[in-house]
Amino acid sequence: MHILILGAAGMVGRKLLDRLVRDCRLGGETITRFTLHDVVAPEAPAGTGVPVSLSASDFSLPGEAERLVAARPDVIVHLAAIVSGEAEADFDKGYRINLDGTRRLFDAVRAIGDGYRPRLVFTSSIAVFGAPMPDAIGDEYLTAPLTSYGTQKAIGELLLSDYTRRGIFDGVGIRLPTICVRPGKPNKAASGFFSGIIREPLAGQEAILPVSDGVRHWHASPRAAIGFLLHAATIDGARLGDRRNLTMPGVAVTVAEQIEALRRVAGDAVAARIRHQPDPVIERIVAGWPRGFDPRRAIELGFTAEPDFETIIRAHIEDELGGRIAA
Amino acid sequence: MHILILGAAGMVGRKLLDRLVRDCRLGGETITRFTLHDVVAPEAPAGTGVPVSLSASDFSLPGEAERLVAARPDVIVHLAAIVSGEAEADFDKGYRINLDGTRRLFDAVRAIGDGYRPRLVFTSSIAVFGAPMPDAIGDEYLTAPLTSYGTQKAIGELLLSDYTRRGIFDGVGIRLPTICVRPGKPNKAASGFFSGIIREPLAGQEAILPVSDGVRHWHASPRAAIGFLLHAATIDGARLGDRRNLTMPGVAVTVAEQIEALRRVAGDAVAARIRHQPDPVIERIVAGWPRGFDPRRAIELGFTAEPDFETIIRAHIEDELGGRIAA
Repeated sequence: MHILILGAAGMVGRKLLDRLVRDCRLGGETITRFTLHDVVAPEAPAGTGVPVSLSASDFSLPGEAERLVAARPDVIVHLAAIVSGEAEADFDKGYRINLDGTRRLFDAVRAIGDGYRPRLVFTSSIAVFGAPMPDAIGDEYLTAPLTSYGTQKAIGELLLSDYTRRGIFDGVGIRLPTICVRPGKPNKAASGFFSGIIREPLAGQEAILPVSDGVRHWHASPRAAIGFLLHAATIDGARLGDRRNLTMPGVAVTVAEQIEALRRVAGDAVAARIRHQPDPVIERIVAGWPRGFDPRRAIELGFTAEPDFETIIRAHIEDELGGRIAA
Repeated sequence: MHILILGAAGMVGRKLLDRLVRDCRLGGETITRFTLHDVVAPEAPAGTGVPVSLSASDFSLPGEAERLVAARPDVIVHLAAIVSGEAEADFDKGYRINLDGTRRLFDAVRAIGDGYRPRLVFTSSIAVFGAPMPDAIGDEYLTAPLTSYGTQKAIGELLLSDYTRRGIFDGVGIRLPTICVRPGKPNKAASGFFSGIIREPLAGQEAILPVSDGVRHWHASPRAAIGFLLHAATIDGARLGDRRNLTMPGVAVTVAEQIEALRRVAGDAVAARIRHQPDPVIERIVAGWPRGFDPRRAIELGFTAEPDFETIIRAHIEDELGGRIAA
């Protein structure tokens, strides 16, 4: 089985690859080749005998997607995207990568034809939804995004379903919750603070909270996200029917509840490292975001997330901090 | 006020133009210029002193949209589209016209910048919805189309909202019901028979019914459609908020109810001219279509349609047949 990962140098891409290298298999089949692509060169994984092709380019440029799928990967995991804050700041770049790049990838698969019909996993986002919204958004709720990023993801979802219906590939779109706790340095996503207020205090550093602590949002750990991707890569597509895009399960908590969970896990001194400094731009973006979901279809289809926010924090401490908290 | 109509040679475009020429005004402003565009040359309207520019081209080709908006029309009515049956039969043509053409038009407005912000009326379709659906689809129901045409219209809606939110234009998208009774010759739309079974019998001809008479669908007359367009062209955009796409009101009836209405209006001999001849392709497409709506937002915003299907038939007899039915 040949697996192509677009966006392989990103946090989720690297964690997915680590897991695949460790498993050596996906859905009962032996992995025989990896193709790893990103705009910057992805690192080759250590400790695998499986052949790995590394590739760095702007995949939205003409010819790039064709080159990437020419070897007919069996599974394509499309993680590449301009994140929400940057897509809002740079209209052209967001549409070029998130819309045109995705469509070029889909069309490159179509151009091969000849019975080639890979599983294509598309990472969408809860940013496809926009206010006003119910507290728990159901699986039949309108996608009416309030950001260009959310618009581009919602368009990718529509194309994914239509191309799948047309038999071009076997697509599964997963709307990731906000990934929390995101390890490493902050990226340009407007949602970055949801992780920052947990990650920095646990590492002994101050964190800025740019919104009110009454903000409720929808989270899953990087560990859960990898589980979603593996399940999306291997599930029987026929079980999804024509609606190929699924809201993933997660944990709905307010920022205050996040902070309380941090206090319970790590103590008052750690929780005291969060400083409230309102940012009207972030506040405005986040006000248009979902507060929670009722993702029945994904749960029925076997996707699973953490039961609560404390479990999310403990996963971060185990996976990223070697079990240690900075006093 | 300068009005640009794309798709001006089509049935809806011609009826809209006739009405605008008759009114000489739109939303309290005097019309000072028309630009009429279609892939075939639109006819110049008779009896108007207002300057009219006629233009025929493929508006999806590079440079065409820029040329059309260069004179900064105040109102752009975008009716141009490849219809459902043809977009399903010709994947590339449907995406090129319905998606790329629409996006090029939107981007051409953006390229002008400089404070230019026209009203842009986009005609979407109830084909943005796909089965399974409730009998009455509400304003917050998921757009999950089951045709490439519906996919392309749903993408146009998303772009319309995002470009409006970005201040590029002041967009209003209207999801037209199936227009019934469509005058003239059948087009390539899979929905053509809904009109054919009324129009041909009233004209003394046999009509083919390709689906079961239990099929329920959502209709409005051409007269109502022109009313929707005029209201969409003049309504205060701020009243719509961020959700710029509205399901238009209409009449939900089964084919059997359509035929009964025809019988009441025109008699048994006319209704007997309908012949049932199932077409599995049409049946499959129509099975994925909506049966009815609960279009509260549009009604609250002042859009109005016929109260029942008999009124729709009588509008056709008045507007197209000079009040006469073929015995």
